[in-house]
Amino acid sequence: MTFELLKIDTATGARRGRLTTPHGTVETPVFMPCGTGGTVKALTPHELEIEGVQLALCNTYHLYLRPGHRLIEKLGGLHRFMAWSGSILTDSGGFQVYSLAQLRRISDEGVSFRSHLDGSLHVLSPELAIQIQQSLGADIIMPLDECAPYPSTIDYLQRSLELTLQWAERSRAAHPNGQPALFGIVQGGTDKALREQAATALQQIGFDGYALGGLAVGEPKAVMYETVAHVTPLLPADRPRYLMGVGTPEDLVENVMRGVDMFDCVMPTRHGRTGSLFTSLGRINIKGAVYASDERPPDLDCDCYTCRHFSRAYLRHLFMAGEILGLRLNTLHNLHFYVTLMRQIRQAIEDGSLAAFRTRFLEKTKTSNHNDTAA
Amino acid sequence: MTFELLKIDTATGARRGRLTTPHGTVETPVFMPCGTGGTVKALTPHELEIEGVQLALCNTYHLYLRPGHRLIEKLGGLHRFMAWSGSILTDSGGFQVYSLAQLRRISDEGVSFRSHLDGSLHVLSPELAIQIQQSLGADIIMPLDECAPYPSTIDYLQRSLELTLQWAERSRAAHPNGQPALFGIVQGGTDKALREQAATALQQIGFDGYALGGLAVGEPKAVMYETVAHVTPLLPADRPRYLMGVGTPEDLVENVMRGVDMFDCVMPTRHGRTGSLFTSLGRINIKGAVYASDERPPDLDCDCYTCRHFSRAYLRHLFMAGEILGLRLNTLHNLHFYVTLMRQIRQAIEDGSLAAFRTRFLEKTKTSNHNDTAA
Repeated sequence: MTFELLKIDTATGARRGRLTTPHGTVETPVFMPCGTGGTVKALTPHELEIEGVQLALCNTYHLYLRPGHRLIEKLGGLHRFMAWSGSILTDSGGFQVYSLAQLRRISDEGVSFRSHLDGSLHVLSPELAIQIQQSLGADIIMPLDECAPYPSTIDYLQRSLELTLQWAERSRAAHPNGQPALFGIVQGGTDKALREQAATALQQIGFDGYALGGLAVGEPKAVMYETVAHVTPLLPADRPRYLMGVGTPEDLVENVMRGVDMFDCVMPTRHGRTGSLFTSLGRINIKGAVYASDERPPDLDCDCYTCRHFSRAYLRHLFMAGEILGLRLNTLHNLHFYVTLMRQIRQAIEDGSLAAFRTRFLEKTKTSNHNDTAA
Repeated sequence: MTFELLKIDTATGARRGRLTTPHGTVETPVFMPCGTGGTVKALTPHELEIEGVQLALCNTYHLYLRPGHRLIEKLGGLHRFMAWSGSILTDSGGFQVYSLAQLRRISDEGVSFRSHLDGSLHVLSPELAIQIQQSLGADIIMPLDECAPYPSTIDYLQRSLELTLQWAERSRAAHPNGQPALFGIVQGGTDKALREQAATALQQIGFDGYALGGLAVGEPKAVMYETVAHVTPLLPADRPRYLMGVGTPEDLVENVMRGVDMFDCVMPTRHGRTGSLFTSLGRINIKGAVYASDERPPDLDCDCYTCRHFSRAYLRHLFMAGEILGLRLNTLHNLHFYVTLMRQIRQAIEDGSLAAFRTRFLEKTKTSNHNDTAA
């Protein structure tokens, strides 16, 4: 994997870049949709291509448990399995172990847990996490880490970071070569000194890119933004920076301005399945009775398939009737919103107009938060 | 609506025809996918177009109860509501009242019932059924009838047919003009004399096409085929003939050979959602453990999007994981199978090779029934 830095917006620190993986180029800043179990929920790979998605995230935890990384490897790897010709980043599985699995226990060795599917017992070590991701054949892989909960005591954060750094070293040792690319994950919660320590230690080990983990876990927005702003200058300029599990459209704009290149979040897809639609005037929930006879598309400014063909009234009808098509059309629209936002952000960086873009965008968002009573 | 009879296969009685409605031409024999609640479940109208669907069926019962025909009319009619530019046939709602609604009671006036959604009380009369379908703006509409259960006594069938013929007269009176087209429905169960009486009486009233109702309700296949073969010669050659609610791929082939022009059935879409896939070698159920590592597409002879991109192993994984994409890909494949079969049937009629096509097709089907243990 290579990373070219095409432009830095001096006014804001935002970066316009380009990742190149064995599966093509990825224009950054980029939002990665979540293809959890080998599918971006409700969408085909063809639709992702049409929307211009170049990089998708898949979850190691899910694919390890079902259908199993060995099976996927035997069938030619994850790209072929899910018929996705673009790039794939896999996470380590750690985050899902903490959030989904049962009876998880962390030791130096790794994390033992019971599957949320059938209760079976598993041990995920840094080495196994690497091995699974190698089997899957991802373009970018992540080391096992601990995502500390918020709030945590400084003692907890310290011990947790120590473990994450040990695991980072073992992950690098288990995957010393450059293909797939391996990122390091900066932890340390909301403690600036710990974040500094993490950034330094990881660079000493040396990774192909650097992620910020342990954010968007309940801390106030301002704290998230401040932490990101504190960490990014500590990272090497010539490597991509990935803010894990973030976020809302506003979060994307704000964190691009703090030097982030990559994002992932279930929000556009999950919200699509609960009827919550992102629009240029804020979120609306299509379940609302107010939309029962609304002839307008979800977003008057949007040119996605959903908005070009269907009314809010029809989408509400589909949702109320439990129709699969409703989930599809909502998801497609939300993904289009995110992909379009990132394209606008990249254009604004190129034009040197990101600060102005942000102001306009947040102004609209403000309206949105007033309107978004149902979502 | 006009109907051109392009060719009759003298060896079999099969007809190659062309319907023209305000929404385009429909090559017959045709299979209509079911767009029950204003959507062919799991598919977009764009996908229907790509598959070559020219005519879809929607259910009056469902749309009357939710979102309501008045709302759809206000929003510009059903075509616009569901963004479907092809032709639409709506049923009368009667069949769903008998099969889905609660506490239904049939009188001369019509049928009173309680909604399966909220228990609300409704009365569906022949006049209201026409009015609802006019509001929806369908291209072809159907009169309220009674679909007698199988088996029924001759007494029941006689009284039921009497009512159906009265309602047919009232329906024609409520819709005397030619737009949309109104079909008559031949009932009479498995009694040939009653079927003859129905065919004669309906032609005296005069309809734009003729449907055969009350079949595929539990009678043996041979009885269905025999009843169809008995009725079609009694109908005018220059009007389309529609066999309601039928059927399996074999049923389509057999009944085209008995002079039927139009079919509808939930089978391809519903089976798609339960993992049952039609293939050129018979049905397979993708849930089967035997497919867990099967690299082959569902059907080696199929060129649909699903078969061009995905393995049985992947489709099984999606199904087991409850992924929406699995339901989509299965449904798309099954619809493609039905649409392709009808295209092959039309071609065989044109080539004068339908009898040979049938022999080959049934030979394969025989294989299929052996294989189809899981479905």
